[in-house]
Amino acid sequence: MIRLFHSPLSPFCRKVRLTLSEKRIDVDLQEEKYWEKSAEFLRRNPAGKVPVLQIDGITMSESTAICEYLDEVYPTPSLLPRDPRERYEVRRLVGWFDDTFYREVTTKILTERVIKKLVGQGYPDSRNVKEGVQKIKFHLDYMANLLDHRRWLAGDVMTLADFTAAAHLSCLDYTSDVDWNRSAVVKDWYAKIKSRPAFRNLLADQVSGFPPPPHYSDLDF
Amino acid sequence: MIRLFHSPLSPFCRKVRLTLSEKRIDVDLQEEKYWEKSAEFLRRNPAGKVPVLQIDGITMSESTAICEYLDEVYPTPSLLPRDPRERYEVRRLVGWFDDTFYREVTTKILTERVIKKLVGQGYPDSRNVKEGVQKIKFHLDYMANLLDHRRWLAGDVMTLADFTAAAHLSCLDYTSDVDWNRSAVVKDWYAKIKSRPAFRNLLADQVSGFPPPPHYSDLDF
Repeated sequence: MIRLFHSPLSPFCRKVRLTLSEKRIDVDLQEEKYWEKSAEFLRRNPAGKVPVLQIDGITMSESTAICEYLDEVYPTPSLLPRDPRERYEVRRLVGWFDDTFYREVTTKILTERVIKKLVGQGYPDSRNVKEGVQKIKFHLDYMANLLDHRRWLAGDVMTLADFTAAAHLSCLDYTSDVDWNRSAVVKDWYAKIKSRPAFRNLLADQVSGFPPPPHYSDLDF
Repeated sequence: MIRLFHSPLSPFCRKVRLTLSEKRIDVDLQEEKYWEKSAEFLRRNPAGKVPVLQIDGITMSESTAICEYLDEVYPTPSLLPRDPRERYEVRRLVGWFDDTFYREVTTKILTERVIKKLVGQGYPDSRNVKEGVQKIKFHLDYMANLLDHRRWLAGDVMTLADFTAAAHLSCLDYTSDVDWNRSAVVKDWYAKIKSRPAFRNLLADQVSGFPPPPHYSDLDF
């Protein structure tokens, strides 16, 4: 039994879910209230974070380490190219979204608007939300710059970089915080990735108290 | 010419410096005041972070992406094992230190004590320092747990996981914030890694206004 302990609006969990699904690995999804830090959960991952994946007799944590493992052991379809320079570019972008984008945008908007309420930490800090709303523009423009010259974010094939970016953006789209009219190439890229079978499961997510907007699951958004 | 734009007390830069040095790749070190965000620096890395490595005609950023590239293109000595499960464990620990440890300890202590002053952001917030000082105990105990059963953090051979952990701990040792008497196995591990030729360059670092304590560069600390 392959099992993923996850949280619906965690971009790190979504990255792993997309990777599993693209590789047609069936997984039992278990929602984890990671902020309650239950003893059993901390035993599975002392770092106290989701995702946690149980597969091949190992209990795994750290989303990028998990995705690299999945790509090595379940190589079809591959989410990392073979050439070291191209692999570097994929990993650079995974880092870009999971660190810089996450810090500047995802936490500023999503943590304030949704996570704080879910975990009972009070009201959004509007300064943070404002900063995130400002910063996402820079990131969408950066993506547009890349996509002006490339079919996918890291090059001519779809990679883990695309899934990482889409994981973050899909969470922010759930709260209507992505201006898809800012760039046609970014919107086209998201439409392509959103219509993949691997994405379906994410589009069905429902977070109690936060219904998604109608366009969230619409493939012609 | 191989050039690294770095900052002396950045654990991410130290990880790359250790990797380069272990692989005997000579590099020209260029100190970068990344917080000044000069136009030239932002052109090299729009994310505005160090390290930035110029090698093989590419300008690279994101420390883990850089280290994975170096290990693929300059494979001797290797810092990642060949078995996917062992590679996973290395990458999990790289993530552990670069994310969880960094967030809970490095930023709480080092950013407050040193970086804030360097970049002119005022005085340390003593609550943060206190939290970091508390949390580092948990992490040292976690390392001790691993090292009770393993020669190195991820298994029987030295890997990028050891360099990542040592990169963070050496920064905190610069400000005397590591209690080496807490665990004999952790102290032995650090003594082993500190005595490697690759470490020498780090032990010669001097940050203006923050002289290191005498034990910092002492191999019999």
